[in-house]
Parts: sequence; structure tokens; C-alpha cells
Amino acid sequence: MEGMEEVKTCLIIGAAPLQNPHSLLSVYHLNDFVICADGGLQAAQECGICPDLAVGDFDSFQGVVPKELPVIPLNPRKDDTDMLAAVNAGLERGFRRFVLAGSLGGRLDHSYGNLCVLHHLHELGCDAVLVGEKEEAYLIGAGEVRQLDCAVGTTVSVFPYACNICNVSYAGMRYPLDHHDLFSDLHQLPMGVSNVVEESPCSIAVHSGMALVLIVKEL
Amino acid sequence: MEGMEEVKTCLIIGAAPLQNPHSLLSVYHLNDFVICADGGLQAAQECGICPDLAVGDFDSFQGVVPKELPVIPLNPRKDDTDMLAAVNAGLERGFRRFVLAGSLGGRLDHSYGNLCVLHHLHELGCDAVLVGEKEEAYLIGAGEVRQLDCAVGTTVSVFPYACNICNVSYAGMRYPLDHHDLFSDLHQLPMGVSNVVEESPCSIAVHSGMALVLIVKEL
Repeated sequence: MEGMEEVKTCLIIGAAPLQNPHSLLSVYHLNDFVICADGGLQAAQECGICPDLAVGDFDSFQGVVPKELPVIPLNPRKDDTDMLAAVNAGLERGFRRFVLAGSLGGRLDHSYGNLCVLHHLHELGCDAVLVGEKEEAYLIGAGEVRQLDCAVGTTVSVFPYACNICNVSYAGMRYPLDHHDLFSDLHQLPMGVSNVVEESPCSIAVHSGMALVLIVKEL
Repeated sequence: MEGMEEVKTCLIIGAAPLQNPHSLLSVYHLNDFVICADGGLQAAQECGICPDLAVGDFDSFQGVVPKELPVIPLNPRKDDTDMLAAVNAGLERGFRRFVLAGSLGGRLDHSYGNLCVLHHLHELGCDAVLVGEKEEAYLIGAGEVRQLDCAVGTTVSVFPYACNICNVSYAGMRYPLDHHDLFSDLHQLPMGVSNVVEESPCSIAVHSGMALVLIVKEL
């Protein structure tokens, strides 16, 4: 559109197992720049998404890497995770908005490593989300408010991340909070766990600390 | 044994889905005090473990709650998670050693909530571990060393928990570290991710901050 600069999203497809690979299509837009992180290439191929770039060693990849696909090879005895290497490739190309699909729902160490990648993007001021087949994860820093555009009835949990305490307010949730402390050790009532959206969009404001928001996706 | 006081373990069985319910038997000892957290009762029954106590509302429980089983009923619109309520019941009975089975491997919000319960037990000075079918989780605080009795070749990842940085040393691991900082945002090389046990037992020492250790179980 004239006078409006388009902001492209970098969609990274990770290797977390998907019961239905076509679920990827719900986060894919034709204009996205798509990077596959190692085994994520298989998921992309299974649902017909044509990536712009792939990153990995592909030592456990069952399919055929297309000859025309640009690949950044990684050493199997590597320092970076595949997901971090893919994100760095996106950052180098100037992207500031990231959707990390196939990043949750597999092994907890992989999911946790991807939370660290999400944190890295958040520290750089990027807009980013982790998307699994059954859940989504956001980070909200101090002074930030995030509107969540999810359906009424959706389960939303909020935890402190990389800190012991975060102070939050909710609007549009079943268990409302106003400038309330959440603790990472549940030593008080865990009012961050399993809240429910009552108005859409609802919103979460973080006044101090950092909050990890986990959304259970409607299937 | 005469002169030795026996330290009983409180085994809590949570509701995380198990591909093979009999995998619970690998963490069960006949002498354990067993508490089932809501749907965990089903898993216990399926592998023939007879609990001492159950906690929950059992609104989604498919089986029959035995009449002789003591039950602590929970309100469905509750403040505590089922797992926290079960842990509190164990703490009230004097237990200081906890194995929280069926606590990882389901929804990430449930797993993350259980990490908060683990943190709670750690703050109280208890010995505790989360056990899923495919992974185990420990917390190690500043000034603590934990020996891990896992097989050579086991994948072990270490992340800061409830803090931005933790300083750690490893012994017996493929990628050794000596008083090295690990960051929660991967802004440096993520040397905590996917390390490999080379000598058993290996050990992890934490000098500052707190470390979350995630072990991929041999299947």
C-alpha cells in the first residue's frame, strides 16, 4: 500500500515433533521469510512451505535437501543450538519480528533452550513468539503491556522468568490482578497459573521483573 | 537396619500423560509414601501402585476412587495447583525428600508450574526431583554440588533458573566448565545446552545464581 512500509516477519521452523504438520500453515503467511532449523525442514516440506534458507547439519534429516535451497551448515559438535543459529541468520538479514514455530512441545531441554532464544530476541527489542502445536510463549518485560488476541475461555498462565518476582496487572481475565507480585517458587498463592480469558483482547501489564506468558492453544 | 534411621521418600504421582504407565515403577519403592495428585491416581492404578493419599477434585478422573483411600478434596476453582497441594500434604506429614513423578512431558504450563513447585521445595531445603517419562529436572543453588548418577552418553542441559546468570563448574562432562557464567538469554555461547556425561557419576557445582538441570533419560 502506498506510503506504508511493509514489515516482513521471519518465520523460523524448528524440529519439535508435530502431530499434524499442516498446523504450521496457521502461522505461515506467503510473504514471510522462512528459515528452517535442521529437522524443521522436514515439517516445512510435509506441508508444502518453501523455505528461503535452512540452517543445520541435517545429520538426522530423513528427506532430500533441495539443491536450490541456500543452506548455512552447522558443525554437529557445535556451540549454538540450531534455533539460535537460525535466529542469528534472521537478525543478520535485518528482521525484527520473529515467529518461532516448532519450538515447543518436544523435549523440555529443547523447549527451555528456545525460551532462552526468545529471551535473547526480547533483549534485542524484537517482537517474538514461540509457537508449538498446543501452546504459545511470550515474554513481557518491565514497563510493557501485551494485548492477547485469544478466544474467551483460553487458558493463560503467567510466571516470572529470569527473576524471582514479577509484578503484574491483568485486564479481561477471570482472576484479575492489580499490581500483584508473582513468585517463581509458588511460596504464595500461584495466581499466575491457569488463568482464563474472559474478554478478548485481554491484556497483561508487567510493572517489574519479566513475565513468561504461556497460552494453551485452542485445537 | 539397627542404628540407622530410615529416611522415607514422598513419591507424588502427577497427571502428565505417560506412554507407558509402567515407567512409574522405575521410581517407586515399596517403602515410599505415595500421594496421587488428581489424574495421577489413574496412572498409579494402571501400574498397580497403591497410594497412601490422593489430592484433587477428580472431575476429569475416569476410574473409581477406592473407598478406603484418604482423599484431600480440592475446589475446582482453586488457588493451588494439584501438585502444590500434594506437596503441601507431604510437607505437613514431615517428608523432606520428594520424587515428583508424572510432572514433566505434558503441557508446558503444567511443566513450568511444576518447576515452581520444585523451586518451592528447594527453598525449604528439601531434596527433590521432577521425573517425566523422558526427562528429569533438578535445581542446584549457590554453594551446592550435585552428583548425577546417569549413564555415560546421557544428555544434560544446564540453564539459569529464577535469575539471569549462574556461575557453574562441571566435572565428568564432554564440554567442561570451570567457574563459567551461563546466561538465560543465550547472548553468549550457550554452553549449558546439550552437554554429555563422559564419566559417571559426573557433578555440577553452582557458585552463584541457581541452575536448572535437565536430564534426557535413557529409554
